[in-house]
Amino acid sequence: MTNPKFDVVAIGNAIVDILSQSTDEFLAAEGMTKGSMQLIFDPAAADALYARMGPGREVSGGSAANTIAGLAALGQPCGFIGQVADDQLGQVFAHDVQALGVHFTTPAATGGEPTGRCLVLITPDGQRTMNTFLGAAQFLPEAAVDAETIAAGGILYLEGYLWNAEQSRDAMKRAIGIARDAGRKVALTLSDVFVVEGHRDEFFALIDAGQIDLLFANDNEVRAMMQNEDIAAAVAALAVRVPTLVCTHGPAGAEAHEGDEHARVPAEAIDQVVDTTGAGDLFAAGFLAGQAQGRDLETSLRMGAICAAECISHIGPRPVADIKALVAEKLG
Amino acid sequence: MTNPKFDVVAIGNAIVDILSQSTDEFLAAEGMTKGSMQLIFDPAAADALYARMGPGREVSGGSAANTIAGLAALGQPCGFIGQVADDQLGQVFAHDVQALGVHFTTPAATGGEPTGRCLVLITPDGQRTMNTFLGAAQFLPEAAVDAETIAAGGILYLEGYLWNAEQSRDAMKRAIGIARDAGRKVALTLSDVFVVEGHRDEFFALIDAGQIDLLFANDNEVRAMMQNEDIAAAVAALAVRVPTLVCTHGPAGAEAHEGDEHARVPAEAIDQVVDTTGAGDLFAAGFLAGQAQGRDLETSLRMGAICAAECISHIGPRPVADIKALVAEKLG
Repeated sequence: MTNPKFDVVAIGNAIVDILSQSTDEFLAAEGMTKGSMQLIFDPAAADALYARMGPGREVSGGSAANTIAGLAALGQPCGFIGQVADDQLGQVFAHDVQALGVHFTTPAATGGEPTGRCLVLITPDGQRTMNTFLGAAQFLPEAAVDAETIAAGGILYLEGYLWNAEQSRDAMKRAIGIARDAGRKVALTLSDVFVVEGHRDEFFALIDAGQIDLLFANDNEVRAMMQNEDIAAAVAALAVRVPTLVCTHGPAGAEAHEGDEHARVPAEAIDQVVDTTGAGDLFAAGFLAGQAQGRDLETSLRMGAICAAECISHIGPRPVADIKALVAEKLG
Repeated sequence: MTNPKFDVVAIGNAIVDILSQSTDEFLAAEGMTKGSMQLIFDPAAADALYARMGPGREVSGGSAANTIAGLAALGQPCGFIGQVADDQLGQVFAHDVQALGVHFTTPAATGGEPTGRCLVLITPDGQRTMNTFLGAAQFLPEAAVDAETIAAGGILYLEGYLWNAEQSRDAMKRAIGIARDAGRKVALTLSDVFVVEGHRDEFFALIDAGQIDLLFANDNEVRAMMQNEDIAAAVAALAVRVPTLVCTHGPAGAEAHEGDEHARVPAEAIDQVVDTTGAGDLFAAGFLAGQAQGRDLETSLRMGAICAAECISHIGPRPVADIKALVAEKLG
């Protein structure tokens, strides 16, 4: 087993976010659940929702891709695997991740659906409600799961959202096998309560087979996994099943469990919550950077909290400030 | 002459901005003049610069289109004429302006160059340096200058940048004729020092023929028009040649001259200059809204200053805050 070339290689949906300021009334009229993510399968329905939305701003997104962007901004060498289409939004996605120095060589799909997009409605409280048209992302072929890249990453980071589509789910399974064979660690982020509800048994099968070393979840996802509304009990019960569990609690901070070790940190104070899009993704970036740098659990959690706080202080899911300098300053 | 359906109808370059944070060192290495706009004619050169830039965020732009977006946000009915291509960035531009309620029906061009884009490099001092690939915008056909829309606007607002390309220049001239025949006012923004240097004689010919009722310029553009470095003298000399002159002085405020009337306002105080992209465009929006509402020169200038201040307090050239409420609050 050679030393990994990349600290983290991630597989995720390659998506461009269209961020728009909205209102509670609009969400209600559209029948949307605030803070959730819903999939839109029909391109015409995606276009119709877009037409009803206000003006937008386009920023590269995708949960795992945001995490990789954060890791790259923190100075950690990374790779990303995900499928865009051969169109302008696909060029935007590829440019943005490559401009950060991330290794990204998945070929753009031709002739099929366009690049995926997420219509994000930001309410005045800073909450985001997401409507995702996966487009080319959901057809990530197994062949795109590049064995050389995966074997070159110390940690393989998998986005739970990819379990929503059959083709990308199969690609994930192939990736886990490659990472295991290369002696690499595998991390999974549960992504969403609906993902957990749809794939709970499969996730537990993977966990119990020892295929997952590191699990990221927020408290609603942990509750859904353990089918227990008592968050402390649910975290404790899940923690004994995975080598490392990281659970984020929104404004109440975050905690991590690793064997007998346990650490907990508060959320970083910020002036104003502008847009929570990407907060969990950037938390994962900070935590993974800490682990890659050999930091302890508590410091890694703090790094996650610092990156998440920067993310929610502006519109868009990727860092705007120099988060590497910010982390160095805050850790002292 | 019927009452106008729209307060303002504008003709401008239909462009999507790609905003990226940059450094003075990058500008120097690229040989760029900070704060200026340069045209990129070669698509390959535009792609190569994009590849060297950092990650971006895409927001609809275009100088006159930003002004119209501001006017619409202020509650004034407006129309816009400009050409995108039939591609994803063209859809983004059209959506963003139509979502504000702006009348925009210029057909997208097919088979030619893609939608125009402006690569905007934002330095830590908030200054923006623009590199514009005009794409489909420069081929605005005379046929796209819709006589019915122009006749329906109380003021025809023309973007000086369109004098840079022969086809869009001809379209402007046709538009002026239509507006004049319909008894409408014509406003021109000089856009850029290089535009003035290239088309000074033609602008004066239009002004002296009584074709321009309202002229917008910043101090460098006024200096270039009058070929006089003394800004007070240059403003005074230009003011006697046009019915209404509005001159912006950046952080030093703005002034307007109309016959014997003169008004001057300071810049609005703001916490931090984040990105000056669009500041002049939003100033024009505030001023024009004031005029459409029958306000006096000084109040119209103040409305311009309030809108410009909101614009430079965030990344991107169009309003993020509710500027209509902001103006109402500040004017008391």
